[in-house]
Amino acid sequence: MMQAGEIESALSDLVIANRILANENVVDAYGHVSIRHPRDPQRFFLARSLSPDRVERGDIMEFDLEGNPTGGDARQPYLERFIHAAAYAARADVQAVVHAHAEDVLPFGITAAPLRPVIHSGSFMGLHVPVWDIADRFGPDTNMLVTNMEQARDLARCLGPNNVALMRGHGFSAAARSLIEVVRMAVYIPRNARVQMNALRLGREIRPLHDGEIAARDLGYKPYSLETRRAWRYWAHKAGCAHLVEEQPVDHVHKPWGSE
Amino acid sequence: MMQAGEIESALSDLVIANRILANENVVDAYGHVSIRHPRDPQRFFLARSLSPDRVERGDIMEFDLEGNPTGGDARQPYLERFIHAAAYAARADVQAVVHAHAEDVLPFGITAAPLRPVIHSGSFMGLHVPVWDIADRFGPDTNMLVTNMEQARDLARCLGPNNVALMRGHGFSAAARSLIEVVRMAVYIPRNARVQMNALRLGREIRPLHDGEIAARDLGYKPYSLETRRAWRYWAHKAGCAHLVEEQPVDHVHKPWGSE
Amino acid sequence: MMQAGEIESALSDLVIANRILANENVVDAYGHVSIRHPRDPQRFFLARSLSPDRVERGDIMEFDLEGNPTGGDARQPYLERFIHAAAYAARADVQAVVHAHAEDVLPFGITAAPLRPVIHSGSFMGLHVPVWDIADRFGPDTNMLVTNMEQARDLARCLGPNNVALMRGHGFSAAARSLIEVVRMAVYIPRNARVQMNALRLGREIRPLHDGEIAARDLGYKPYSLETRRAWRYWAHKAGCAHLVEEQPVDHVHKPWGSE
Amino acid sequence: MMQAGEIESALSDLVIANRILANENVVDAYGHVSIRHPRDPQRFFLARSLSPDRVERGDIMEFDLEGNPTGGDARQPYLERFIHAAAYAARADVQAVVHAHAEDVLPFGITAAPLRPVIHSGSFMGLHVPVWDIADRFGPDTNMLVTNMEQARDLARCLGPNNVALMRGHGFSAAARSLIEVVRMAVYIPRNARVQMNALRLGREIRPLHDGEIAARDLGYKPYSLETRRAWRYWAHKAGCAHLVEEQPVDHVHKPWGSE
Repeated sequence: MMQAGEIESALSDLVIANRILANENVVDAYGHVSIRHPRDPQRFFLARSLSPDRVERGDIMEFDLEGNPTGGDARQPYLERFIHAAAYAARADVQAVVHAHAEDVLPFGITAAPLRPVIHSGSFMGLHVPVWDIADRFGPDTNMLVTNMEQARDLARCLGPNNVALMRGHGFSAAARSLIEVVRMAVYIPRNARVQMNALRLGREIRPLHDGEIAARDLGYKPYSLETRRAWRYWAHKAGCAHLVEEQPVDHVHKPWGSE
Repeated sequence: MMQAGEIESALSDLVIANRILANENVVDAYGHVSIRHPRDPQRFFLARSLSPDRVERGDIMEFDLEGNPTGGDARQPYLERFIHAAAYAARADVQAVVHAHAEDVLPFGITAAPLRPVIHSGSFMGLHVPVWDIADRFGPDTNMLVTNMEQARDLARCLGPNNVALMRGHGFSAAARSLIEVVRMAVYIPRNARVQMNALRLGREIRPLHDGEIAARDLGYKPYSLETRRAWRYWAHKAGCAHLVEEQPVDHVHKPWGSE
Repeated sequence: MMQAGEIESALSDLVIANRILANENVVDAYGHVSIRHPRDPQRFFLARSLSPDRVERGDIMEFDLEGNPTGGDARQPYLERFIHAAAYAARADVQAVVHAHAEDVLPFGITAAPLRPVIHSGSFMGLHVPVWDIADRFGPDTNMLVTNMEQARDLARCLGPNNVALMRGHGFSAAARSLIEVVRMAVYIPRNARVQMNALRLGREIRPLHDGEIAARDLGYKPYSLETRRAWRYWAHKAGCAHLVEEQPVDHVHKPWGSE
Repeated sequence: MMQAGEIESALSDLVIANRILANENVVDAYGHVSIRHPRDPQRFFLARSLSPDRVERGDIMEFDLEGNPTGGDARQPYLERFIHAAAYAARADVQAVVHAHAEDVLPFGITAAPLRPVIHSGSFMGLHVPVWDIADRFGPDTNMLVTNMEQARDLARCLGPNNVALMRGHGFSAAARSLIEVVRMAVYIPRNARVQMNALRLGREIRPLHDGEIAARDLGYKPYSLETRRAWRYWAHKAGCAHLVEEQPVDHVHKPWGSE
């Protein structure tokens, strides 16, 4: 019972995450978000090939860490599911992954200028945001998509211990210790990118966040604090699925009154 | 029966295309999209003079490749229908044409900077995007509109074997081997343009797509793959005409489970 | 009867114009649009002090060319109604006036860079767009608003024979030979401004419209052509007042089938 | 009776202010607005920890000028309520405070370029907009949030007699003599920021407002004039709470017919 409830709660959150990312223009018909199976770290959940704004509970499939559907599920999966599989395989701490093509992040993937936290809501992308270029290892003739485990493992290596990797001419992949955190990053990374680009209009000297500020914010982060859930509820409400947030059984909401 | 069904299916898709382009801000009251007649390559379909967001099945007219309405249809056509006629006349491979004034593409038509694919969703515009200047051949005193076949043929010559031609101070025209593809280009070209403009804020060195990447993506493109139709459905849903997509008879949807 | 119908038709159009300008973000709570009285050139119509998105038929007041309400109408008028009065007094050809603060036009009022037509839909602002600085004649201590006839006449002098004058740090005023035309200008001027600003990202060499192109477009303009009314209907539809367009008695729509 | 009515009217306005700021994208899930208690200058009103778009009358808490909830209210307050407490404590003239992270203001907090009034609707931010950097006094290892009175007092000192202080990498805080005024500032400051940034594209020479213009506008400002309330009603209408504006008892609306 407990386990079933926990999984249902996680899948409900995954539906919400899909809708939020669509409504906040982080994804359009393309891009996807996954969570690791709460009870089996060798599995993860990801929707079948469908626009995130249309994903419902029944559209979610289970995969192993090679990107293969489990249990003989024959539905069409996303072509780039391997991105998720490789991130979970490489990093035991990762509980949720987003891959998206958010427009305002893309300029940083095609120039030498590093994307970095310049506003406090962007701090969670971390000190260093590497850029992965598929052509470096797979040559200049790919279709740019990550369509097998070899490519996905190379991307995971580039990501390393960081939270976000840009993908040249394509998008970004983000990994986090909770679904709420990866969604928050995916929403605020484009905002940080816009602020950073606009600041460049005003002069080349930008004061980014201090390393200590990034670290302090990271240490203080609590995914189930009231402050953190406030944003989740806000985005869910805007995306028309506040009812899914309300339905969530209270006993699976850990630490509802964070001390943050 | 088969033929009638195929034509009805094509016209239904053309209505959807009108609505998508309007909803995605590719067109406003002006701009238009056409398809070649599926059974008669000397004919094409295009709405009467109407805002694309209002186009319904009954508003679609048939034209010959000189831009004349067929069958004595006396309704008012678009002034610039010749753009479509000349594109179909010049290129047997072209099945669909869009002419639009999407704002973020316009800067590339009035400067020397070439628009080129810098993101993977922009790859379908192809390696080279020529700029057509009506004044080059028709002088500096036109009203800038393409209002006869002579002007339209000149534009088609400039387009050549490419997928998109910019029109100085006016807009762009795109031609493709399927309606879904031309709509996709028309939506993603402005996005590519914005990313390219924003990247310039970050420094002059931009890494565009490799020629091999553009070619690989072009080769792999399948208009009726699940991946491709996903975007079509997504845009149709946002534009309030998902019901038209659902209505479409299944037997006219070729290769619904693409291997892409 | 004829006269009453003509005036009612004009006032209905003025309501639509208010709603369009609000919906297209040309005005917010501030900014206004007027028409000259169709039968009495010494009078003009303008709403009482109200947000344009809320203006209805009963909110429209009549003014003389000194900006005084006629017939003892004691309702609160707009503070800057004098802009309209002075434009009608100075220019017999002007039938409609817009004053607004559209954000993307404002940068051109505070720098030396001239706003000029660079896209065909921007052609109607004309070859020359002067900038009026209230401080030039009224000193650096005004509240920047045009609150009397002396200031308004100075602005009208700056406007001269042109269609648009920018107002430093404030907005713009546009004057045209028809309501449809002034609304169209007010919608497309900000678009032209954005394209011009974005083109500057791509390099300093911009190819604006040729003088002959601006003149040809101006000569060919017909406010009641089908092409022109198409945009009016489109914007009205988006603004939720398509029903007002439909209601309009056909016998007051001159030249419905323009040859443009 | 009178007092109760006045307080209820003030709290109703505070609910409207929350909704307006959310709808105008000044705040998202984060950011907040407060008013000083109309009868007890040692108290202020601020919502409990909740997204501003969801705030209702029952969510508003009362605080003392140390940021402590009064009357044993045990609900979770905003972490940064101290910003408000310190502003009211330092400035007897301040009646309302906004703290927000509006995206387009943020670039000015991380560069040396000063934000300053360049459009008339931005005049109310005043001649000088200081930038507060939390690291100057509290070091480079904070989480950047203002979470105690010591930090908040330092911010209030930086604000000094000005209306707005930017907060490096974080947002801004604005203080005004009325709620309507602080909301207006919060909406128009980002617009002024955008115009200022865009003007820089056109050349480095920007003509900002004259000091005398800023002063004249400030002197003429009347929070309850018809002109001022027009914007309030407009924003409330857009935010879906026009009904709250209408409900407001007329006898608590001071000076409804301003002579502005």
